[in-house]
Amino acid sequence: MIGGGHSSFIGIVHRIASYIGEEYKLVGGAFDTDHGRAIDFARSLELDTNRAYPNIDAFVSGETALPADERIEAVVVVTPNFLHYPMAKQLIEAGFHVICEKPVTNTAEEAIELEELVAKHNVVFALTHTYTGYPMVRQMKSMIANGIIGDIHKVDAQYYQGWINPVIHDKEKRKGVWRLDPAKAGQSCCMGDIGVHAFNMIEYTTGLKTEKVLADLNTLYEDNPLDIDGTAMLRLNNGIRGLVRASQIATSEENALQIAVYGSKGGLRWEQENPNYLYYLPEGGIQQVLKPGHDYNSEFAKVSTKMAPGHPEGIFDSMANLYSGAAKAIKGEDYIDGAFPTIRDGVRGMKFIEAVLASDKNGNSWTEIVD
Amino acid sequence: MIGGGHSSFIGIVHRIASYIGEEYKLVGGAFDTDHGRAIDFARSLELDTNRAYPNIDAFVSGETALPADERIEAVVVVTPNFLHYPMAKQLIEAGFHVICEKPVTNTAEEAIELEELVAKHNVVFALTHTYTGYPMVRQMKSMIANGIIGDIHKVDAQYYQGWINPVIHDKEKRKGVWRLDPAKAGQSCCMGDIGVHAFNMIEYTTGLKTEKVLADLNTLYEDNPLDIDGTAMLRLNNGIRGLVRASQIATSEENALQIAVYGSKGGLRWEQENPNYLYYLPEGGIQQVLKPGHDYNSEFAKVSTKMAPGHPEGIFDSMANLYSGAAKAIKGEDYIDGAFPTIRDGVRGMKFIEAVLASDKNGNSWTEIVD
Amino acid sequence: MIGGGHSSFIGIVHRIASYIGEEYKLVGGAFDTDHGRAIDFARSLELDTNRAYPNIDAFVSGETALPADERIEAVVVVTPNFLHYPMAKQLIEAGFHVICEKPVTNTAEEAIELEELVAKHNVVFALTHTYTGYPMVRQMKSMIANGIIGDIHKVDAQYYQGWINPVIHDKEKRKGVWRLDPAKAGQSCCMGDIGVHAFNMIEYTTGLKTEKVLADLNTLYEDNPLDIDGTAMLRLNNGIRGLVRASQIATSEENALQIAVYGSKGGLRWEQENPNYLYYLPEGGIQQVLKPGHDYNSEFAKVSTKMAPGHPEGIFDSMANLYSGAAKAIKGEDYIDGAFPTIRDGVRGMKFIEAVLASDKNGNSWTEIVD
Amino acid sequence: MIGGGHSSFIGIVHRIASYIGEEYKLVGGAFDTDHGRAIDFARSLELDTNRAYPNIDAFVSGETALPADERIEAVVVVTPNFLHYPMAKQLIEAGFHVICEKPVTNTAEEAIELEELVAKHNVVFALTHTYTGYPMVRQMKSMIANGIIGDIHKVDAQYYQGWINPVIHDKEKRKGVWRLDPAKAGQSCCMGDIGVHAFNMIEYTTGLKTEKVLADLNTLYEDNPLDIDGTAMLRLNNGIRGLVRASQIATSEENALQIAVYGSKGGLRWEQENPNYLYYLPEGGIQQVLKPGHDYNSEFAKVSTKMAPGHPEGIFDSMANLYSGAAKAIKGEDYIDGAFPTIRDGVRGMKFIEAVLASDKNGNSWTEIVD
Repeated sequence: MIGGGHSSFIGIVHRIASYIGEEYKLVGGAFDTDHGRAIDFARSLELDTNRAYPNIDAFVSGETALPADERIEAVVVVTPNFLHYPMAKQLIEAGFHVICEKPVTNTAEEAIELEELVAKHNVVFALTHTYTGYPMVRQMKSMIANGIIGDIHKVDAQYYQGWINPVIHDKEKRKGVWRLDPAKAGQSCCMGDIGVHAFNMIEYTTGLKTEKVLADLNTLYEDNPLDIDGTAMLRLNNGIRGLVRASQIATSEENALQIAVYGSKGGLRWEQENPNYLYYLPEGGIQQVLKPGHDYNSEFAKVSTKMAPGHPEGIFDSMANLYSGAAKAIKGEDYIDGAFPTIRDGVRGMKFIEAVLASDKNGNSWTEIVD
Repeated sequence: MIGGGHSSFIGIVHRIASYIGEEYKLVGGAFDTDHGRAIDFARSLELDTNRAYPNIDAFVSGETALPADERIEAVVVVTPNFLHYPMAKQLIEAGFHVICEKPVTNTAEEAIELEELVAKHNVVFALTHTYTGYPMVRQMKSMIANGIIGDIHKVDAQYYQGWINPVIHDKEKRKGVWRLDPAKAGQSCCMGDIGVHAFNMIEYTTGLKTEKVLADLNTLYEDNPLDIDGTAMLRLNNGIRGLVRASQIATSEENALQIAVYGSKGGLRWEQENPNYLYYLPEGGIQQVLKPGHDYNSEFAKVSTKMAPGHPEGIFDSMANLYSGAAKAIKGEDYIDGAFPTIRDGVRGMKFIEAVLASDKNGNSWTEIVD
Repeated sequence: MIGGGHSSFIGIVHRIASYIGEEYKLVGGAFDTDHGRAIDFARSLELDTNRAYPNIDAFVSGETALPADERIEAVVVVTPNFLHYPMAKQLIEAGFHVICEKPVTNTAEEAIELEELVAKHNVVFALTHTYTGYPMVRQMKSMIANGIIGDIHKVDAQYYQGWINPVIHDKEKRKGVWRLDPAKAGQSCCMGDIGVHAFNMIEYTTGLKTEKVLADLNTLYEDNPLDIDGTAMLRLNNGIRGLVRASQIATSEENALQIAVYGSKGGLRWEQENPNYLYYLPEGGIQQVLKPGHDYNSEFAKVSTKMAPGHPEGIFDSMANLYSGAAKAIKGEDYIDGAFPTIRDGVRGMKFIEAVLASDKNGNSWTEIVD
Repeated sequence: MIGGGHSSFIGIVHRIASYIGEEYKLVGGAFDTDHGRAIDFARSLELDTNRAYPNIDAFVSGETALPADERIEAVVVVTPNFLHYPMAKQLIEAGFHVICEKPVTNTAEEAIELEELVAKHNVVFALTHTYTGYPMVRQMKSMIANGIIGDIHKVDAQYYQGWINPVIHDKEKRKGVWRLDPAKAGQSCCMGDIGVHAFNMIEYTTGLKTEKVLADLNTLYEDNPLDIDGTAMLRLNNGIRGLVRASQIATSEENALQIAVYGSKGGLRWEQENPNYLYYLPEGGIQQVLKPGHDYNSEFAKVSTKMAPGHPEGIFDSMANLYSGAAKAIKGEDYIDGAFPTIRDGVRGMKFIEAVLASDKNGNSWTEIVD
C-alpha cells in the first residue's frame, strides 16, 4: 500500500475491502511521507517494519530486490489525487499489479499512457469505481445484457451530494477547500469527482458507449474556478439519449447516486443509498423488487453476495467485490466480465470529464468523445 | 360544463373535484356533440334537460338570455384540446367565469390573447394544473416563500411516464395515437402534455421565472412528428439553474412527477405518486418528513387538507382545492395567492413549450422566454 | 342525512363520498339538533328547507308521508355514537335503506337485533368500514380468494395511532376526553374505535372467521376507565393464528392501519397510509408491488379505481366505493361480494369487541366468539 | 477460532467482522473435526499449521503451554449450537476471552453457570447479538437513555422470516430440518433462534427488563416438535407493555427484525433490513429520519460508523462493532456501555426462551422471569 497510513481516511477503507475476501494480506508499503510515522503504523498492524519503506522509490527497489516468491504482488495506491498517475506508472513499469483509487490520472492523455503500459507490462490494473461492486448493480448489468428490458432508449443517472453547501457561500471558506483548487483537484470538482461515477455507472450497466456530450456546469460564484454542479446530455450508441446530473450543492443530500435505464421491454432503477433494492418495471407487468442472495439473481450477482437475503451488505462489501475480482485476475483465474473496473474505465472517465469541460466552455455545444 | 358527457373520461374528474368543496352545483352545459346523448346524460344526473344545450352557441345564447341570478356563473371546459382556445374565448367574451382543462391554447399568442380578454371582461379564469392543489406542494411553496431553504441555487423537476412505450415501437400503432398527431395534439406531445407540468411546478413552488431554455427533444423514430421525451436546461432568475426532464418512454413509470429544490439553507423534495410526504433536508440537520393535517404546516397547506393526519387525500382532492380557490375568486372572497392557476400560468406554459421546441430545432441552443 | 350539519366533522366526509360516484343526491335530513341551524345548513347547500327536519321523528313522518317516488330512499346516520343504534332501528323499521357510521351499536345484542330487522324489512344496510373500499384492499381480497397465496397460516393486523398521547398523561385533560367516557364512547375506546377496524380487515380480506380471542388491554392510568391500547391473539378457522394490535398511545403515529397475511404460497402486505401499494411476496419468487389502475388487477379492484395508474386516490375515494356498492344494492343491481360492509360486519365487530373485553377482564383467557 | 473451517458458513462472517476493526489477528484454532481439513484451511489463510489443532482439548493444552505473550488471547466459538456451552465453559476455565455465537447455551441454568465462570475467571465474554452493533440501534439506545422520548409506555418488536415455509408443509422435508430437531436445535426453533433477538433488542434499546410473559407458540403441524411462529406479550418494568412477534412462516419475508418504542414525548422506529434509517416521531412535531455519520448522532452511534453519510454500512460492519467493543474490553480500555453483548444478555435470553415455552405449555398463562 502506497499512502494509507494513520492520517489517511481512505486507506482503512481499502484495507477492509481487501480483508473481506481473504485473498489479500497486507505485507508492507510506503504508508506515510514521514518514515517514523510509517514505521509506527506498520507496528500498529504488526507488520514487518523492514517493509515499511520511506517512499515509493525505496518500496520499488526494496521489493524488486526480493526473490519473486517473497515479493509483494499487488500495490494499492491511495495517495493524494495528483500522485495517482506518476505512482501508478512507476509501479506498472516495475511489474506490480496495481489497485488504484479514483481519479486514475489528471488528464485523458495520462490515462491512455497508463493503458498502454498496463498492456505492455501485462499487469492487472483495478480502478476502484466502488459502486460497480454492489450485487444489485451487477444484477442490473446482467439483466440488461440478457435483453430483459429490450432495446434501451433512455438512461438517466444522478449523483447528488450537498457537502459543499456549508462552505461554498462564504468567500473565505471556499478558498480553503482543496477540491476547489485546480492544483490539487485537477480540472473539475463535481464532474471529476462524482459525475464520472454516474457516467461510469451508465456505461457499466448498459454496455453502451457515450459518443458525444452537451454539458452545462455551474461554479455558482465567479471566484470559484471549478464546477460544483452540472448536467450533461449524452448521445450514446445509436443515438440513445442519456443524462448525467451531478451536484455538490444539492443541499443535505448525502450520496444520492441513482440510475434509471428504460428499454422497449422494461425499466430498471437503482439507488446507491439503498443498494440492496433493484426495481424492475416490466412493460405491462407488475413492478418487481429484486434483492441480493436469491436464486433468481444472475451468477454475477450471486457471487457478489456473501449473506442470505435480508442481511444488508454495504459499501465495504461492494469494494471487496472489486478486490476479489482483481484477485482472480492476478491469480490468473477466470472471472466474470465487469468483476472489477480497469484502466479502460479510467480512460473513458477522463475522456468524459474533458469532453464535458470542453462542451461547457464552448457555449454548451455538442462535444465528441473519440475512442 | 362544455364537453364531459358519457363518452368523456375527464368530465367526471372535474365534476368530482367540483363536488368535493360543496361550492359548485352542476346545472347544465353542452355535454356532447350529439344532442340526444347530451340529454340522456343530463337525465342520468337528474339535471334540467332544457339546459342540456346542443352546442356552445346555444349554451351561451340560452344562458345569457336568463336573468342574472338564474344564469350559470362558471363554465368548465373539458372538450378536446384544440377546442379549448376558441371555446374559452367565446365564454370569456360572454362574461362567464371559466375553468379550463390543459392545454389552455395551441400557441402562446392565443394564450396572451385570452389573458387580455380575461382582464378586459373581468372574469375568473382557472387552469387546472391539478398538481398545484396538493397540500404538500402548497406547503413547499409556503416554506420557500418564507425563506426556510434560503436562496435557491438548483431546481430539478422530472415528469416520467411510460404509457407510449407499448405503441411507439410499431409503425402502424404509433400512427394511430392522437397525441402524436399535430392536428389534434398541437406542437408537442411530451413537453406540451407533461413537461409543462414540471415547468409549472418549478415556477409555482419557487416563485422564480424561467429566462431561457436549452432543450433536447426526442421523437425516437423519424416518422414520428412529435417529441415523446426531452430534457430542458433552464436559466431561472439570477442565473439559477433548473432542469425539466420529461418522458413518455420511461417504460412502466406511471405518473412520476417529482421536484427537488435546493437552497443555501436546505432542500425540499416532493413526488406526485406519494403526495402526502414532503421531504425537508435542512442544512446540517436531520431530514424531516412533513405530512398534511398537522399544525406545523402553513395556513395555505392547512386549508388545502380536509382530514386528520394519516388519512390520505388524493388527486381528486388536489383538483378540488383548485375548484375551491376559484370559487373564492368568483364569489369575490379573499384567497391565498396560488390557490388556483390562472391564465398567467397558461401563458407561461405556452411560452415554455414554444421556447423548448425552438431550442431543439435550432441545434439545442439557448432560447429566451420573454415575458 | 341525520346529523352532519355545520358543526359536524364527519358529515362532509360522507357527503363527499356520496357525491363521487354520482349515484346519490342530498335531498334533506335532520342535520342538527337546533332546527334553525339545520335550516341554515340546508340553505347553504341550496336544499329545499322543508326537508330540513327538526329531528328524526319529523324526518320519518315527513318523508313516509310523501309519495313513494318522491320519498328519500337512503339515509346516512352520522350522529354521535350512542345514537347510531336507536336511529338506525327507527329508520330500518320505517323502510329506509341506511348507511351508518361506525360503531353500529353499543352492544353485540343490539347489532344482532338490527341484523334481524334489516332482514325483516328487506332494506340495504351499509356500515362504513371505510378502509375496505381501497382498491388494493379489494385486490388483496381477490388474490386470497383465488388461492394466490395458498392456505393461510398467519395474519397480523396493526392499527396504531398516537392521538391520545398528548392528553392521556394529565389527569385533568384525560377526564375531558369524550372517547374515554363510557357514557359517550361505549364499552371500549381503542378496541372499539380502531381495533375493530383491524379485526374487520382480517375477516374481510381473508374470508376467515375468528373463533376465539385472548386479549390484553391497557388503560395506562387507573382512573382511566377505557382501554387505549391492546393486543388480541386470535384463533381463526382451522386454528389459524391471527393478531390484532391496536394503540392510541403509539406516540405520533398517525393512522397506521396495516395488515400482513401469510400463506403456503406467498404473503401479502398493505398499509393504509400508502394505500395504493400492495406488496405480494410469492414463495421463492421476486417481491411484487401491485398498484391500482392496471389490467393485472382483479375485476373488483378495477371497478374500485377511477383514474389511470399513478394518480393517487385517497380515503374519500375509498369511502365512495362503499357508497357505490350500496347504491348498486339499493337499485337492485348486481354487485361484487364485499362491495360494502353490511350489518353482518357490524355484528362481527361488536362480538369481537365484547370478547376482547371479556378476555382481558378474565385474566387474559381465551374467549370464544360464537356466531 | 473453534469451528469455522471450510465447511462452515458462519466462520467467514466472524472473521470478516474481526478484520474490519484491525484489532484482531487470526492465529490458530480447532477449525474442523477433520484435522487434515483443518490444516488445509490454515494453509489457505497462510496460518502456522502447528496452531491448527485437531480439537479443542489440544487447542487449550497447546496454547496454555505457550508463554503468555505468545498465547492466543481471545477465542471465537462458531461450532454447532449444542457445543457452545461446553466449549465456552472449557475456554473460560482455561482463561481465554470468548466471543461466542448465539445461542449461548441450551438452558438458562447453563447460561447462569457461564456467567458465574466469567466473573470468577475474569475474562471477557462477548455474545454476538449482531444487530445491536448497528449505529442507528445505538443511536436509538442513546436517545432513549437521554430521555428524548420521555417515559416509555409501549414497545413492539417483530422478527419475521419466511425461510421455513418451503419445507414445513411436507412431512418428509420437515423431518430433515435440523432446526426442528430438539437434539440439535434445543428447546425452541423460532423463539430460540430469532424471537430472542427481538427480545434482546427491546431490553438493549430501552434498558427495561421483562418481568413476565404470556406466549402463544405455533408448530403448525402436530408431528413438528418445535415452534416456528409465536407471539409473546411482555410486562416490562412498571407494568410497561411489550410485544415480541416472531415467525419463520411469514412467507417470503427475509429478515424482518423491526422495533418500535413509544414514550410520552415521542416514538422511535427501526428496521434491520434498512438499518441506516432511524425514524424519530416527536410528539406534536415533524417526523425525523436520522442516518449514520452525522454530527447530530450520539457519541456511541458516531464511533460505530466508519464512513461519511450516505455510504451504507451493513451487517458485517455491525458485527465488527461488537468485535471492536470486545477488543476494548480485552485490552482493558474504556468502552461505552452496550458496546458488545455479554453473558448477561445470554442469561436474559435463555430465561426469556424458557419462560415463553413454559407460558405456552401452561395454557398461555403469565410466566415470570426472575433475575
